[in-house]
Parts: sequence; C-alpha cells; structure tokens
Amino acid sequence: MTFPQNFSLDAIGVVHSPFKEKFGIPRQPGLAQTPAVIELLPPYAVADAVKGLDTFSHIWITFIFHGISTQEWKPLVRPPRLGGNEKIGVFATRSTHRPNPIGLSVVRLEKIEIAQGVKLYIRGADLLDGTPVLDIKPYLPYADVIADARAGFAQKLPERLRVRWHSSARDVAQDISTDSCAMIEDVLAFDPRPAYQDEPLRIYGMHIDKYNVRFRIDEHGVEIVGIEAVISEIR
Amino acid sequence: MTFPQNFSLDAIGVVHSPFKEKFGIPRQPGLAQTPAVIELLPPYAVADAVKGLDTFSHIWITFIFHGISTQEWKPLVRPPRLGGNEKIGVFATRSTHRPNPIGLSVVRLEKIEIAQGVKLYIRGADLLDGTPVLDIKPYLPYADVIADARAGFAQKLPERLRVRWHSSARDVAQDISTDSCAMIEDVLAFDPRPAYQDEPLRIYGMHIDKYNVRFRIDEHGVEIVGIEAVISEIR
Repeated sequence: MTFPQNFSLDAIGVVHSPFKEKFGIPRQPGLAQTPAVIELLPPYAVADAVKGLDTFSHIWITFIFHGISTQEWKPLVRPPRLGGNEKIGVFATRSTHRPNPIGLSVVRLEKIEIAQGVKLYIRGADLLDGTPVLDIKPYLPYADVIADARAGFAQKLPERLRVRWHSSARDVAQDISTDSCAMIEDVLAFDPRPAYQDEPLRIYGMHIDKYNVRFRIDEHGVEIVGIEAVISEIR
Repeated sequence: MTFPQNFSLDAIGVVHSPFKEKFGIPRQPGLAQTPAVIELLPPYAVADAVKGLDTFSHIWITFIFHGISTQEWKPLVRPPRLGGNEKIGVFATRSTHRPNPIGLSVVRLEKIEIAQGVKLYIRGADLLDGTPVLDIKPYLPYADVIADARAGFAQKLPERLRVRWHSSARDVAQDISTDSCAMIEDVLAFDPRPAYQDEPLRIYGMHIDKYNVRFRIDEHGVEIVGIEAVISEIR
C-alpha cells in the first residue's frame, strides 16, 4: 500500500443553522443551545437510514468545516483558549485549519422528521449554515464518556460573560421571541470575538438567528448596543 | 451550491495494531486495552503538529474503516448488540458499512515519540492494522462528556465473558508475556464472533497480537483450546 492514501467522501447531509457567518460561532459544541436542522441529501435521505436513532438523546456529527478560507495547513496554530498568543500543534486543538477540514460535534437530538425528506432537529451545534455532513453516529455513553480524562490547556468550560442590553437595544428586544433573545445571549456570553481582538471600545457586528446584533465587550461583560431584524427567511 | 458535494481527504497517519484481521476486533473502543501506534505520514509527520498533545490523556481518532469489503451501503443494518436479528438504521449504529466509511474512536494517549517520525502510542483502540487515519483531536471532557446521555439499545457496556484456558493451551501460555495473555483474554471476553454465529461446539481461530488463538464459546464463557506463536514481526 502506498501513502498518502486519498479518500473521496460524499456529503450525506447539510446543516441549516442560524449561524450564517463563521464569526461568532461558539467554539465548542454544546456551549450554546442553538437549534439547527440536519437535512439528509439524496440518495441518503431515506427514513430507514435513521430508524432507531430517536432512542438516542445525543449524536455525533462528522462534518466538513464550511466557509473557511482555504489557507494552507500549518503544523502550529494559536488556539483562542490560550489568548491567541501561544502556538500549539494543530492535532492538539480542534482548530478549523487542519490537514483534513473535518469537524466533530456532539449535539442533542430533539426530533426526527421523515414526512418530507429526512430532517434531524438538533440543539447545541456549533455549525455554520450550509455545513456539509459526512456522517451521523449515536453517542454511546459507555464508550464515549471518559469521566477521568485529563485535558491539557482546555480543562474547563470557557467562562460565561455577563450580557446586558443597552436601553435602545432593549426596546427593540421587546418584539423578539424569548428563544431568540436566549440564543443571542448564549452566543455573546462565550465571547465570539477572534482571540487576538480585545478592543473594549470597538463595536462588533454579527448575524445571530434572524438579527444583526451590535455589541462591545469590556471587563464588565458584553453590552448589546443595537439589534435589527434581517429580512431573509431562515428556518 | 450543488449536492451531493464530494470531498477528497488524505490519510495523515496509519495505525500499527496487533489486529491483523477484522474478525475479533472489539466492537467499541476502550473495551479492550489493546496497545497500538499511530504513525503520522509525510507531509504531516512533523513534531510541531503534535506540540501540546501530550497534555491530554485521551484523543479522538477519525479514521477510514479498513479491510472491509466494499459492499454497497444499505439503509438498514443488523447491529451485533441486538443479536444480529433486528434491523436498524445505519446512522443509528456505528456499523462499518455506512455511506462514508468513517470510524470514530476515543483512545488513551500513552506516549508521543518524535525521534524518528512522529508516533503516538495509544491504548484501547479497536483499529485494524493498516487503518488510515484522517484526523486526531484532543478529547475535551467539558464538551465531550455527556453524563446524562440516553443511548437506546446500547446503554451499557457489553457483558464480559469468563475466559478459561484449556490445559494444553495453558502449558503454552507459560511462555507468553502477561501483557499478551491479558490482551488475548480482553479480546475474547467481549465475544469476537460475528453476531449471527452462535455454535457452542465450533472452534474459532483468530489472530491476536503475535498469536493464533483457537477458542470456543458456550454458556459457561470462552475456552481457549489452542494457541501458537505466528512467525512474523509486528509494528
């Protein structure tokens, strides 16, 4: 056998998610309880293929990192968790810029719909809208829970920042559903800024759910300074 | 964007393992504490790429199922855990026969060697010798441990069978290292037979570590009836 071997893999599904841009996606799955939908694609969109999956509360999604620049692979990366200063080996991180752009997320499976195609309703995904899915597997606690695992520089959940609404944004928020408000706060609480950016006076903008949200982050936490609805249908 | 999309991925490493044949590989990682080595392949075999990985006790291996027949994908499979009779959706199982032959295993990382190439010494792998590796990621307890996950038909660890040695095999075992004996017992204790086979009188043969092992399984457990060394160098 000769190496490197090369493998050709199909997308078996596609993600529909409120994250329309890479900026701001929570850096680990499960940290924010964002809802999303995986739609199986033909010829894989057959109800039989997910028979019995509804008996599992969580599933693994193996996917292709989507919407990232196709910059070349580098052996060392700067993980956000280390403040973006220290360099660490790409295989010691879950960085999107890796030799094969494969992502891995465990998500909660809420519902399966097989009426029109096959749709998996999930929650807790850190997946960009349009992400191609390579595989879906059940989460098996007896194999996947390593209770005593030691995790180098990323032992703990990132700290949640306090989120407050500026009065003008709060007025708009009156008309926004509780679910959407919670999602916006979830995303901002885990500091969506790129790791190397720490400018307390700068106003950042990002698209969350159906809204453009403007915010800034200082030592007191996150302040939402503006929010407006985006005119586009998303699920 | 048009679907199905197709992705071309490289093997970044290859597994050296005592499992030379598919038959008998423990059906879930971590169930048997078998040692194995992942050797990174050029151009990925650079020490920098694993810098910091040694601070993690466990890693995820994303790999290509190796040595399986290239039979066509089917929506329904018969998982061994259901006795091989009930059919279930392929995405509700970790079956090797899936649309994309991607495997996922969490293994213990014991040691990293960067003197000659890059080698990761692991334990608890269910990986066939020669398995192509697509990706290595750290196991992150705060994201990957779902303590309250519910797992359909595969809630619990498969039951361990009692393993005994027939007197003639036990004589030979005197000359075998304790490590090898333990590995052989580990593999057999989880019943390596294909799910649809349950013939108490039949003698099965399999290659474990450096040995050909003959055994049979009845209601009292596993009996090792013969063992001989295989003349071949591994790893």
